[in-house]
Amino acid sequence: MKFKKNAVFFVALFVYSISIAQSNKSLEDFKPSLVNQQGKLFPQVNSERRVRASISAPEANKVQLDIGGVKYDMVKDDKGVWTGESAPQDEGFHYYQLNIDGASVPDPGTKYFYGAGRWGSGIEIPAVDQEFYTLKDVPHGLVSENIYFSKITNSFRRCFVYTPAGYEKDAKIRYPVLYLQHGSFEDETGWQTQGKANLILDNLIAAKKAIPMIIVMDNGYAYKPQSGEPNARPTSVFEEVVITEIIPMIDTKFRTIADREHRAIAGLSMGANQTMRIIMNNLDKFASYGGFSGTSNYPSTAEIDPATFLDGKFNDGAAFNKQIKVFWLGLGTKEPNPFPGSVGAFRKMLEKQGIKYVYYESEGTAHEWLTWRRSLHDFACRIFQ
Amino acid sequence: MKFKKNAVFFVALFVYSISIAQSNKSLEDFKPSLVNQQGKLFPQVNSERRVRASISAPEANKVQLDIGGVKYDMVKDDKGVWTGESAPQDEGFHYYQLNIDGASVPDPGTKYFYGAGRWGSGIEIPAVDQEFYTLKDVPHGLVSENIYFSKITNSFRRCFVYTPAGYEKDAKIRYPVLYLQHGSFEDETGWQTQGKANLILDNLIAAKKAIPMIIVMDNGYAYKPQSGEPNARPTSVFEEVVITEIIPMIDTKFRTIADREHRAIAGLSMGANQTMRIIMNNLDKFASYGGFSGTSNYPSTAEIDPATFLDGKFNDGAAFNKQIKVFWLGLGTKEPNPFPGSVGAFRKMLEKQGIKYVYYESEGTAHEWLTWRRSLHDFACRIFQ
Repeated sequence: MKFKKNAVFFVALFVYSISIAQSNKSLEDFKPSLVNQQGKLFPQVNSERRVRASISAPEANKVQLDIGGVKYDMVKDDKGVWTGESAPQDEGFHYYQLNIDGASVPDPGTKYFYGAGRWGSGIEIPAVDQEFYTLKDVPHGLVSENIYFSKITNSFRRCFVYTPAGYEKDAKIRYPVLYLQHGSFEDETGWQTQGKANLILDNLIAAKKAIPMIIVMDNGYAYKPQSGEPNARPTSVFEEVVITEIIPMIDTKFRTIADREHRAIAGLSMGANQTMRIIMNNLDKFASYGGFSGTSNYPSTAEIDPATFLDGKFNDGAAFNKQIKVFWLGLGTKEPNPFPGSVGAFRKMLEKQGIKYVYYESEGTAHEWLTWRRSLHDFACRIFQ
Repeated sequence: MKFKKNAVFFVALFVYSISIAQSNKSLEDFKPSLVNQQGKLFPQVNSERRVRASISAPEANKVQLDIGGVKYDMVKDDKGVWTGESAPQDEGFHYYQLNIDGASVPDPGTKYFYGAGRWGSGIEIPAVDQEFYTLKDVPHGLVSENIYFSKITNSFRRCFVYTPAGYEKDAKIRYPVLYLQHGSFEDETGWQTQGKANLILDNLIAAKKAIPMIIVMDNGYAYKPQSGEPNARPTSVFEEVVITEIIPMIDTKFRTIADREHRAIAGLSMGANQTMRIIMNNLDKFASYGGFSGTSNYPSTAEIDPATFLDGKFNDGAAFNKQIKVFWLGLGTKEPNPFPGSVGAFRKMLEKQGIKYVYYESEGTAHEWLTWRRSLHDFACRIFQ
């Protein structure tokens, strides 16, 4: 009996070891990532959504692939080339970097993206629904870099402006405008690079699922010029810049329909928080709102008192429903705390107040760009209709 | 006497040693480069135009700053931070990289630029005349990303289009167009990032030194779809793409003056070579040309026979002078071989043929972007006048 038990145990251990070894072996169907630099073979992604990175570093002692908060050791071959793989990643876009003997550097194989507070590498894991943001042979809008001087911040600022296909053709047609904001440690470049806002709208407009619209993507960081006082905390003046500088500039420079019904504002994460405050403080300017993975009670998950929250702006549900055309919230099913809790508490408040809103869930995505691409895709179909 | 001689020798050696030590010690007035990522203190540049790079790499054995074709060893401090300096660099913009234990990687301190066949680090050495490309509080044009599908190459392509300030205001005003090309191993992003074409034109137009114009910056690499034959050399179809796809698209999408007198074409290095061929083959399309650090006889420095060169297009000097409004050539005084020789041979041919042209020299610059910024600045003032 004893011997038999042991035999079973060892057989079980042997089978278990094989399955471990198998699960650690990646499927060999790796392909170069879609956001690699032209002609670069690495990084690659396989059908299990593993990332394989590779870099020549003949004299290095230790090279790691640093993605999704985990550092994966890479292995050196006899030519000095280090290669390594990550565990399966979520579908969509992720920031990552390499670590070479303690130095955190971009992977020279990829294009670079601004996020996590720095220009660095990104990788694209093919998604089940990627068609909606794929570059196709449909009419394409333009994305224009627009530099301006802000008197409020005493600095040069920049926004990118999407004008839909056909904007140049008929000088009499005017368009509604969506103001679309990035998240924390990101900037005005995020929505049209990793966000693919232009391709999403090109495809939606070509399929007649969204109304042709202008999209303005500015930088959510805007501060009063420093007073010179030591340790003075910078004062955010983003709302003032939006209302008194950006909107008048856009309405002058582009053929907009310059009223609240034809103006929407949306943002992701920090941008969702900022833009909710902006619309609620400026209901004469905007009629629709999109909060992608964020609400203004962030990071609190506590019950919200509508009498006091945002100066009671959500206290009169009936008045709110009359004024707001689209109030849209979205979240990925894999978002980390505190997002599910804080967005959940916000939704409970809306429901208690009888406020009508759209709620969207992005399946299998976290606090990352595929959640927000999908959010924009859903939101853009609902506004200005 | 002998002793005295030796003493003089040793004193001289001592003085010489001091001066060596002094010349190796950098002036401590380093400032962060203007093209650093926001908030990044390194790389830096001092008034001697030395570049100082710095990166944390605690476990590395060897870290080098690789700039201008020279690798400079960096030195590790007790916190694992490596720092090192280059010899003085030329004024203007330079590509560079770091080497960490044999891995060539971008410096995580800088923004990234496409050049030398890859997205990588760049540094900006202040120039004596940098005012002309400095971002100033003047009216700014827009730079638009324009995606299109090319039937000739069977691929998506992209150009950036500069429209001058005020373009949006009056829908009746039409503008001349400059087609402006990058060099080899660069792409359509070069002219408005490292080239600063938009800022150069914004400043020139605000000062009424240049006529408001549209600038089209496309990608000079365009090939026939691969036949599938093994080892088939790709056939460049850039001229065909320019003439039959890009120009008609620009003339449809933008308010251009669509005739040869209001169309100019220019390029740098490989782009100078390409665009010279394009204008000479299409004199019905363009009337002005700018060759920045390049000519179509490249890399030859031999005497040119105008009867045969480019199918005899330069053979009739008088006819040439009637047809071409501006024929412009430029070169940096520090350009390496074969550029001085090949451009020199080309100029000799022009002079022999009695062809009128402008020749510009950029003082103290090599085959790099300050030469080309200055070239654009000079050229843009002369066209469409």
